Amino acid sequence: MEVDTIVQDGVGEDGPPAHAERRIDRVLLLVAMEAEALPMVERLGLVKDETLIAPPASCVTYISQDGRICLTYYGKCPNTGMCSVGTVPAALYTYLAVQAFKPDLVISTGTAGGFRARGAAIGDVFVASATVNHDRRIAIPGFDAYGIGKLQCVAAPRMRKDLGLKFGCCSSGNSLDWHDTDMKLMLEHEAAVKEMEAASVAWVSSMFGTPLMCVKAITDIVDGDQPAHEEFLTNLAAAAEAMQGVVPRVVTYVMGKQIKDLY
Amino acid sequence: MEVDTIVQDGVGEDGPPAHAERRIDRVLLLVAMEAEALPMVERLGLVKDETLIAPPASCVTYISQDGRICLTYYGKCPNTGMCSVGTVPAALYTYLAVQAFKPDLVISTGTAGGFRARGAAIGDVFVASATVNHDRRIAIPGFDAYGIGKLQCVAAPRMRKDLGLKFGCCSSGNSLDWHDTDMKLMLEHEAAVKEMEAASVAWVSSMFGTPLMCVKAITDIVDGDQPAHEEFLTNLAAAAEAMQGVVPRVVTYVMGKQIKDLY
Repeated sequence: MEVDTIVQDGVGEDGPPAHAERRIDRVLLLVAMEAEALPMVERLGLVKDETLIAPPASCVTYISQDGRICLTYYGKCPNTGMCSVGTVPAALYTYLAVQAFKPDLVISTGTAGGFRARGAAIGDVFVASATVNHDRRIAIPGFDAYGIGKLQCVAAPRMRKDLGLKFGCCSSGNSLDWHDTDMKLMLEHEAAVKEMEAASVAWVSSMFGTPLMCVKAITDIVDGDQPAHEEFLTNLAAAAEAMQGVVPRVVTYVMGKQIKDLY
Repeated sequence: MEVDTIVQDGVGEDGPPAHAERRIDRVLLLVAMEAEALPMVERLGLVKDETLIAPPASCVTYISQDGRICLTYYGKCPNTGMCSVGTVPAALYTYLAVQAFKPDLVISTGTAGGFRARGAAIGDVFVASATVNHDRRIAIPGFDAYGIGKLQCVAAPRMRKDLGLKFGCCSSGNSLDWHDTDMKLMLEHEAAVKEMEAASVAWVSSMFGTPLMCVKAITDIVDGDQPAHEEFLTNLAAAAEAMQGVVPRVVTYVMGKQIKDLY
């Protein structure tokens, strides 16, 4: 399969938005790692909250003083002390945070790999057209689609244009690297972005009927020649800074608008 | 790595049990698929409960009349209508069920692939020594161990001997098939059993400090020559029947005992 076409802004959107009339008065930001979350917490002036989500959940929650912005990051794994990356904590903490905060819009944000063939460079920020899974292969009719779990996101073409953000499919898997079989699935779904959480955030958000936007900053090039873990560690701080700039602008942009105003 | 050694009963246990003094008065059974769950529900005489776990969670819960046995299966994916297999729904519904039912012991049960090199044949029932993930590769120090996420289970050697059950490591991943990198990790962890949920059930149970036992019936041979999805569909009913026989005997065996009585 060839992936030499750069996806142009607006191409690949699936017509009019779902939840078009929904007014965005409460926004939930979901982030995997503390290093990604804390710069945004500071820039947005959020305050730690210890009442919204009770233990033993080890996620960490911050709220704005007006109560309209909530940020939850997935906290430390109680067994290893590492940041709880991957689809499992993402699903669990999305459920608990959406249940408790009742947002009008969920935004899954953080760092990601980007496909050079789809126009990604380090430090870029992408908005997702849809989320898929590339590591859930189940070759039984019906289960194959469940495994991929493709779900449309709030593509927000007007917002992307106004804020200068890139666009493409976001593919999630539980490994930082990729295997040939992962790559085959990512190419089939024309992935522009590869990360480790969004598809499970999407699955849980869809369960609540809450629209999801994904905003991902590129730390490493998936179809480049450096191993993901090396580029990731080198560029994490730069990408966190890009997010610190963009995510508050996204939140300000969407707040008080209807979903259709983003189109 | 060679895997030509059949694991003998009792070999590979890590000394005395955790939670040794814990008395088992409430047991939570967790199952992925309806076809696995309903024969057990019938044999155990459980009654549907609609109050313990509220929507939008799409898991389905049954409880015994004395309130000491709860079975939750993961229900239908709201988007595709398929059974919610894999680590994402397993983690979410383990959390909600343990939070609501407050069991003394969680039992993750259902069908699985088995390794012939570790003594598995179709229809066998295995108890897990530990759970690991084989599809969470993160080559950053600390995150590598988080990705594998190895957690000890209630190995219950005395119970295994009394009930004639086999024993070995249970490796979880989100694909029904496996590729060479998955297999490399499964062999490194001396997996006897391959399935799609237990490691995330273990992660969430550990968060609550609740001991986990895994009881898995073999539908397909991982290191055989038939594709997993063909053998799985052929043998699902037979394995469900094996579980229908064994799981109620396991529940009867553990109920009222302390964890140390299983050793």
